Formats: sequence, C-alpha cells, structure tokens
Amino acid sequence: MRATVMFGAGDVRIENVPDSHIIESTDAVVVVSRACICGSDLWPYRGLEEFPENGRRMGHEAIGVVEAVGPDVRTMKRGDLVIMPFAFSDGSCVFCNQGLQTSCIHGGFFGIHGNDGAQAEALRVPHADGTLFVLRVDKDDALMPSLLTLSDVMGTGHHAAVTAKVRPGSKVAVVGDGAVGLCGAIAAQRLGAEQIIILGRHSDRIALAKDFGAADVVSERGDEAVERVRELTGGFGVHSVLECVGTEAAMRTAISIARPGGAVGRVGVPQNETMPASQPAFYNNITVSGGPAPVRAYIDKLLPDILEGRIAPGRVFDRTVSLEQVPEGYQAMDDRKSIKVMVEP
Amino acid sequence: MRATVMFGAGDVRIENVPDSHIIESTDAVVVVSRACICGSDLWPYRGLEEFPENGRRMGHEAIGVVEAVGPDVRTMKRGDLVIMPFAFSDGSCVFCNQGLQTSCIHGGFFGIHGNDGAQAEALRVPHADGTLFVLRVDKDDALMPSLLTLSDVMGTGHHAAVTAKVRPGSKVAVVGDGAVGLCGAIAAQRLGAEQIIILGRHSDRIALAKDFGAADVVSERGDEAVERVRELTGGFGVHSVLECVGTEAAMRTAISIARPGGAVGRVGVPQNETMPASQPAFYNNITVSGGPAPVRAYIDKLLPDILEGRIAPGRVFDRTVSLEQVPEGYQAMDDRKSIKVMVEP
Repeated sequence: MRATVMFGAGDVRIENVPDSHIIESTDAVVVVSRACICGSDLWPYRGLEEFPENGRRMGHEAIGVVEAVGPDVRTMKRGDLVIMPFAFSDGSCVFCNQGLQTSCIHGGFFGIHGNDGAQAEALRVPHADGTLFVLRVDKDDALMPSLLTLSDVMGTGHHAAVTAKVRPGSKVAVVGDGAVGLCGAIAAQRLGAEQIIILGRHSDRIALAKDFGAADVVSERGDEAVERVRELTGGFGVHSVLECVGTEAAMRTAISIARPGGAVGRVGVPQNETMPASQPAFYNNITVSGGPAPVRAYIDKLLPDILEGRIAPGRVFDRTVSLEQVPEGYQAMDDRKSIKVMVEP
Repeated sequence: MRATVMFGAGDVRIENVPDSHIIESTDAVVVVSRACICGSDLWPYRGLEEFPENGRRMGHEAIGVVEAVGPDVRTMKRGDLVIMPFAFSDGSCVFCNQGLQTSCIHGGFFGIHGNDGAQAEALRVPHADGTLFVLRVDKDDALMPSLLTLSDVMGTGHHAAVTAKVRPGSKVAVVGDGAVGLCGAIAAQRLGAEQIIILGRHSDRIALAKDFGAADVVSERGDEAVERVRELTGGFGVHSVLECVGTEAAMRTAISIARPGGAVGRVGVPQNETMPASQPAFYNNITVSGGPAPVRAYIDKLLPDILEGRIAPGRVFDRTVSLEQVPEGYQAMDDRKSIKVMVEP
C-alpha cells in the first residue's frame, strides 16, 4: 500500500510499504477516507525533530472505514465509519476512565515510535475499542471535513479552552491563528466567552477567526501585543488565554496578557525545556495548564454541535490533496499558503 | 519606636525609627502583639535581593491591637485585636471581590517598597477595612500562635492545597518541610487527602508533619525522590503537589511526582525567571498554579477550625524572641535550628 514517509527535513515521500494488518487481537485496520496535515507535522518537516533511519510514517488524524478487526474487538465491525483520534488508548485504564486518554498507560501516538501514520491508504489502529469512535453518517456526508477535525484540531482547541477555564462571560485571547487557534475561537464561543481576541497576522485566518466569534484582532507582537490586549480589556488582561503555538515567545505573551487569577491553556507543543515568565505567572496567580488533548473524550461533547450545524470547524481546511500530492500539501502549509490541508487518499 | 531594619545580607538590626502614624484616611496604626520571621525573610538575609539605601523594614505577619484609625475606617476601632495578612488590600476592587486580595489594584505588601514592617513595635496599615480581620478573642489567648499563622503560613499552605486541587481522596505530596510545607500538610488533611507524603529531611519538622497527617516521608532528593514517591503511589505519582520551596530543583521534583492530569500548587517564591520541566508538565497535562496566597480571603474559612481545635498550625513556632532578639531569630532560622520564630515585641 501507499503511505507518507518523512526521511528528513523537507523530505516527504509517498512510498510503497507493507500492507497494514492486524497484529494484536484488539487491533483494527482502517482504510483512510480522509486524513490531514497537522501544524505539528511541520516541526519535523522543518528539521526540528530526529528521524529514525528508515524514515517516519506521517499523519495522525483520520476518518476511515474499518476493514478488519482483531478477535477481541467488540464495539465495531468491518464497514463501520470511524473517527480516529491522534492518540490510541485502551479505554479502560485509570487515565482513560478519567477522560485523559492521551496518558493511557497502554496508549501511544500515531505516526511515531513505529506506529502507522494516517497519511496513507490504510493504517493499523491499536486498542480499536478504546480508540475509535463509530460514526452513524455516510462517508461522503457534507459534514465530513468538520467531523474530521474531531480527530485533532477541534478537540485540541476545545482542550485549550477547557484548561484555560473559559466560561460564560469570560474575556478570552487566542494566541496563534493556525487551525488549532481557529478551533480554539470556536470552542471559546461555544463555552460562552463574552469577548474573544485573536492574536495573529494572516488576513485569511483572521477573517475566519472573525466568523468564529473573535471580534478583536491583535496583529502586534511582544510587548506591543500585550499593551494592545490590555487596552481591549479595561487594562487588566483576559481571564483565559488559549496558547496555540508552542514557542517561548508565544508562551511569554500568553502569560503576560492573562489577568491576575487567570489561566493559560496551552496546546501548542512546547519547543523549549523551560517555560518563560515563571515569576510573573507566580506573582499574578496565573494557572498554566493544558497538554496533548484527550480528543477521544471530547467527541461525545462536540459531535452534536457539528451534526446540528452549530459549529463548522471544517472551514479550517482550505485545500484538499490526493495522497500522491501530500508533499505539495506540506509545502503549502509550510509556506503558509494553506491553513490546513485535507488528504483524500 | 523600635523596628527591624535589614541593611544587607546577614545585617539585621533593631533601630529607632519615626513612630508609625496615620497618613491616608483609610489607614490604621496597629501595635504589634505578635509577629514572626518568615522563610521568605531569609532570601534577603542570604543576600539574594536588593536593598534600598536606608535599609528595608522587615516583617509582614502580625496580630496586634488597633491604636488609631483614619476618618474613613468603618469596621474597626481603637482597641480591636486584628490579624494582619502579609498583603494589604482595599477589599473592594475587582480582584478583592473575587478573593484574590494579593492582586488588589490598590494593594501592596508589608516590609517592601517603603511600607512598614511587622517586626516592630507598631506599623501603619493601609486600607485597614479591606486588610485587617477583627478577632473576638483575648490577646493573650492560648490559641494566639495558631491565629498568628492566619497572617501568612497557614493561609499560604491552604492556598498551595487549593491550587493543587486537593479534594477528598487525593494523594498529595508536599515539597518542603518548612513552616509553609507543614501548614500545607494540615491543609491537605483538612481538605480530605487520603495520603500525604512529605518531602524533607529535618527530623524535627518531619515529626511535626507526621502529627499533621503526613504518614509517608521521602528524604531522598532529585530522581531518587521521584522514584520513591512513585513507589508510594502505585507507580503513577500524586494527584496534587504542594510546592513550598521555590527553587528550580523543588519545582522540577514537584512536576516529576505529579501524575498525569495532576496539579502543582506553588507557593514557594520562585527564584528563577524560567520554570523547569515545561515539556514533562505539558505531555502529562499537569496544571501549575499558585502564587502569593490571598490569605485575607482564607481567614473566614480557617478560623473556625482553629477556634474549635481541629487544626493547630501554631505548632510550627518552636522559638519565641523579643523584638531586640530578632537578629538571633534570623540566625536560628537561617541555621535551621528553628522552624519558625515568633516575635513578641
């Protein structure tokens, strides 16, 4: 079968690889209907991560059709349409039971450590019962792009909003106008935010953020951005910051624009071992929370809003490519010519 | 009047200073009945902070008797016995109203920036109505040491426990066996912790921690301490960590012993601009919260437990000195010959 393999910075290829097949009795094999390229896929693409010698299988977001299940899989069968969250999880451990599937003690992540990737014709999914969410819609439904975001970006934006403690009446800032930040704006509005400020500077993304409820835009950076957010919030900063970038500068901004007693929910993968602005965070009693989103736990909550048309996170996709065109998709995202690329193998 | 002034590292003197008096109409002057020396007073004592040219007035914890009030003070009168929290606050701003008096927009801290200190015969208290808490007990009551801890260490230990999300059934670790850590153990037990582990190595303090409910003691440091806490908690770490030190090493340990989805409540004043272990905190979805404790907000909650004998945080005082003996008190705490020193001017 064909699958995306990254061999080094900028070196993404579509390769022939052995067909995915059942290994463990709790596995499923899923034929990918839709996948996508994630902002986090750009970190290795830019050479910021190590590569295994034989390259790394890419992609961790998908909707697909179950092709085969192991003998211990109980909740799905061949032919079922499923959402595949970016992490697999057994669905039964202490952390899964508390809704933190990204810390499952038998879990892991697609596309690294030898696990199959979703930018492929098919992939093996460990712990299918705990991982996959069976959809009761047709695989060509017009809502498919939005449903696909439940595998990562919409759940991740929601996690940022939840860990930033967004509630009715909150003033909220979203740091980063990528697909996750845009979904963060959707999530903040959905949770009742009174004011949503987006920090970003790409006109196409800002336009979408405004559609998603971010009435205020801050295009400045650093101290100027902090000053601008304070002006927009009566001088105190916001209750909740959704940090959707992961760089040191973004985190410093996030902490600086939170009001005393506020919270930063971070979902941008941190690129540094240390966190900046520890002292300001302390003196202002700012809570820093967040991490890899347990998107599996959030599908139940977010799905009705998509099915009933209240949110449309699928609008973050502005380009669709075939599997063979995936390298061009990476290039488009790296050049910021595309917000997020959908893959239809 | 006599007051404690620190001129440089190790240079604490009792000096004649102008009598404290009313300046603003919302001020009170309080004659100090009891004060104490704080672990945080040792930071400048060890030369880790800058000093103003004329020295720095020391002390921020007190119980005392109101001697005079400005014309706009409404809730207390001359002769009232009051607890003085370490921060002053107007009691009416947006942050005071949400119980975060340490971020009061008209507030500040005793003993710095030219504000009077409590290791003195008397001191001026700005915003008396918002700051001071009137006690209905005799000033020589046997509970006085415990009541005195409501001005800082007990409220601070409680803040660590609250921000670390301690709840009934929680497994809790307390990093640091100083007076705040010991009060943190009290607070954790009071909030229903199922298991309390104290990380420390001073036998007198450990004995007290055990009395306060910390059944498990970890005297190792660094990776060995982490390993030991994991052993004591079924391999996963604790739900809640109370970080009561403030050094980088303590913070690294705190994050490392929190289980996925757990929380660190930090009240040790951070000595570094950056926070360590940002990536492990992220990948494990660990919440880091805390800061200067709004002890004024906590007096209402904690006072009944002291008055009715359910908690006895005054046991952290193991030495009492007169005002003239305050320099010896600093020395005893710096040498770790004393956990916490009470001052009776």
